[in-house]
Amino acid sequence: MQKQKSIAVVGSGLVGSLLALYLKKLGHEVTVFDRRPDVRKVEFSGRSINLAMSNRGWKALETVGIETEIRKLALPLDKRAMHVNNKPLYFQKYGKEGEAIFSISRGVLNRKMIDLAEAAGVKFQFEEKVWDIDMPNAKLYTGETEKGEWEEYDFDLIFGADGAFSRIRHKMQRQSRFDYSQHFIDVGYKELRIPANKDGSHKLDNASFHIWPRGKFMLIAMPNQDGSFTCTLFMPFEGEISFESISTEEKADDFFERYFPDIKDEISNLKGDFFRNPTSAMVTIKCFPWTFGDKVALVGDSAHAIVPFYGQGMNAGFEDISILFEKIHKHNDNWKLIFEEYQNERKLNTDAIAELSYRNFIEMSSKTADPDFLLRKKIENRMGEKHPESWIPMYSRVTFSDKPYSEALALGERQRKIMDEVMEMDNIGNRWNNQEVEDRILELLAKTK
Amino acid sequence: MQKQKSIAVVGSGLVGSLLALYLKKLGHEVTVFDRRPDVRKVEFSGRSINLAMSNRGWKALETVGIETEIRKLALPLDKRAMHVNNKPLYFQKYGKEGEAIFSISRGVLNRKMIDLAEAAGVKFQFEEKVWDIDMPNAKLYTGETEKGEWEEYDFDLIFGADGAFSRIRHKMQRQSRFDYSQHFIDVGYKELRIPANKDGSHKLDNASFHIWPRGKFMLIAMPNQDGSFTCTLFMPFEGEISFESISTEEKADDFFERYFPDIKDEISNLKGDFFRNPTSAMVTIKCFPWTFGDKVALVGDSAHAIVPFYGQGMNAGFEDISILFEKIHKHNDNWKLIFEEYQNERKLNTDAIAELSYRNFIEMSSKTADPDFLLRKKIENRMGEKHPESWIPMYSRVTFSDKPYSEALALGERQRKIMDEVMEMDNIGNRWNNQEVEDRILELLAKTK
Repeated sequence: MQKQKSIAVVGSGLVGSLLALYLKKLGHEVTVFDRRPDVRKVEFSGRSINLAMSNRGWKALETVGIETEIRKLALPLDKRAMHVNNKPLYFQKYGKEGEAIFSISRGVLNRKMIDLAEAAGVKFQFEEKVWDIDMPNAKLYTGETEKGEWEEYDFDLIFGADGAFSRIRHKMQRQSRFDYSQHFIDVGYKELRIPANKDGSHKLDNASFHIWPRGKFMLIAMPNQDGSFTCTLFMPFEGEISFESISTEEKADDFFERYFPDIKDEISNLKGDFFRNPTSAMVTIKCFPWTFGDKVALVGDSAHAIVPFYGQGMNAGFEDISILFEKIHKHNDNWKLIFEEYQNERKLNTDAIAELSYRNFIEMSSKTADPDFLLRKKIENRMGEKHPESWIPMYSRVTFSDKPYSEALALGERQRKIMDEVMEMDNIGNRWNNQEVEDRILELLAKTK
Repeated sequence: MQKQKSIAVVGSGLVGSLLALYLKKLGHEVTVFDRRPDVRKVEFSGRSINLAMSNRGWKALETVGIETEIRKLALPLDKRAMHVNNKPLYFQKYGKEGEAIFSISRGVLNRKMIDLAEAAGVKFQFEEKVWDIDMPNAKLYTGETEKGEWEEYDFDLIFGADGAFSRIRHKMQRQSRFDYSQHFIDVGYKELRIPANKDGSHKLDNASFHIWPRGKFMLIAMPNQDGSFTCTLFMPFEGEISFESISTEEKADDFFERYFPDIKDEISNLKGDFFRNPTSAMVTIKCFPWTFGDKVALVGDSAHAIVPFYGQGMNAGFEDISILFEKIHKHNDNWKLIFEEYQNERKLNTDAIAELSYRNFIEMSSKTADPDFLLRKKIENRMGEKHPESWIPMYSRVTFSDKPYSEALALGERQRKIMDEVMEMDNIGNRWNNQEVEDRILELLAKTK
């Protein structure tokens, strides 16, 4: 057993509440601070993309012993449902038989996790704003306003789980030799909603992740247990077809009529939501170091926010907790060593998933109309189907495994180089599904193993 | 003439005081705020690398009409003096006849520029700390402490010239969709000093930039007008030979004895300065946007801090003012357009000099022992000498021209590709100075023109 510590977790989001519960189960005294009100007592924000829990997320929940509870809140999706204009709806299986991602509402999940943590004895202090932190002494300062009176708290350890715009990281950033970057993409997103049928059933297949790909923009929909779907419209902020250009209810109506005729009438209060719900930005945040001595550590988005195009944001945050768990079991009371190994191992892997997520965004936004890219994908898919042991689809490797993200990135690089050579083959456009091409790939695979 | 505005410049460093003087000459009311004391009334900090003024810097000073004044403070350096262990001292000319960089002490220059700005009517408010800024209304808030009472100032325009750790940029950074990165290198630097001879003359050639290259670390020395040299030791923070490992006066003594025997005894109070002067970090900072409407703009390091290995930090900052000057003359009172064109044009070019400076650091720290790299440099130097019109040395292009940095970067890329091909030629190590190699390069140059 570890020696009992008094620990603060800043942020009661998904990663913060998971970490708090886990630390409480280890026997520590845990207080969670959040500047926002208790998410169990307020309406959801209307600015959230539904979550896709996959292997890494489940593994962390299992470690902490709450997997079964959470499974009850999630709907398995074993395929994509592709809504391509002027084509019948078609489906793409995500992986092998039995493999699925799980749709879950951020609000529903967060409420449940706070309930579980509270029941285990974690203390939550909502609407208490952390303004400063004394890192060498693990002190926290909270108060109504930044310039007003502050209360001082003394802890043994402080975790920053306070998201992409973390106050704890902000304090770390003032140290010399702290590397930091935030990079926004020029695409934003907006939440919309498809309500349930009158009988509570779903209006679309509820075991699919629905996608309406439209080149520079796209709509997705993920089912909720109450029969509704949470939809997300991804679109450039500025430009010809953009959140900026769709400036009136009439234009919004025309836009959906033209690009999403099959679903337009199902989206509830389309014009109202479109203008009432905020347009949110997406950012990749990287930093290093993540820890300060044996006193302070960052987890989740505060250390590594990523764009959502691989569905791995929450999964990567939860995996932080799995890795912390491993290190705690290895080093017991040596928090300095726990933090050091944690940050070194995780940094490598969260940089990798940041890169993979960003590449997926680039592929989706600029390459889906490129015939070379589409040919590449066709050849890769064929290989994945015919030689599932040798040609591992990247999506499966990231989503249905818990092998390090950095290995997935390296595998992707290796497969990309092989495909570069294959795409140079004479007349590849016509003979892409020939035995010859297949043999060439197998040969290259054998060579680079 | 522009309509008179009330303008605040935050930061009284080199770029801030140049900008203030320039705005004053245009007829504006200008107040400069600085959190530090008046640099004219305090000792220099012991943490500054001497500056190397080159074409871009001089051009900006000329535009504002103070070039002649400043020339008096500078010493021309037309060559590098290479102090290689176990080799006699040798010299490398920087450019063509008459081309030189100019050594100038940061403190001496800064004091002079504040004098000139003050004489022109700029108001300086030293030891007044800016804590916050209201960007849409161009208001500044200053005070003793962040949490104490603040004074509010109303301006028409605010410029942030407050350096790499800019408070003004910090405020901008809180906006959504603000891209930002700070990346530290693992090498630090420390200032040392070689005093003048008794008669006031220099102990080393005072028309040279002195370099003691030692692979992973190096010493440089630049002359001052008082007969002294300002030395800078660049060395890794951690590792076998590092600031961390040289932990005692005895170790410092051994280190200089072993690696810098020819200069060791000239460095004044070596062991004292080594431990008294701080070890400083070096950072590359990039951000975007640099401006807010027609109200706020960043200039100099606050917008684009770079590592010093191209000697372009101050020059790039001064060039910001030249470009602002151009845009003001083009758009007169349309500050929104002035700011927009300024940031778009400068961003491209300061990203380029950041990249070039970082590459120089990588070359100096990891490639100087690589035989392929040295062979490359030999071939390039030979081409530069034999065909100065076709093969433009990168250093000259950056230093002795005011063509955009981005063009220099593109030129460098083109030359690198050519050299990649040349290095693949059979037996290049033996025939590198043959006619054949020269012809091949000319042919490739003609092809890519």
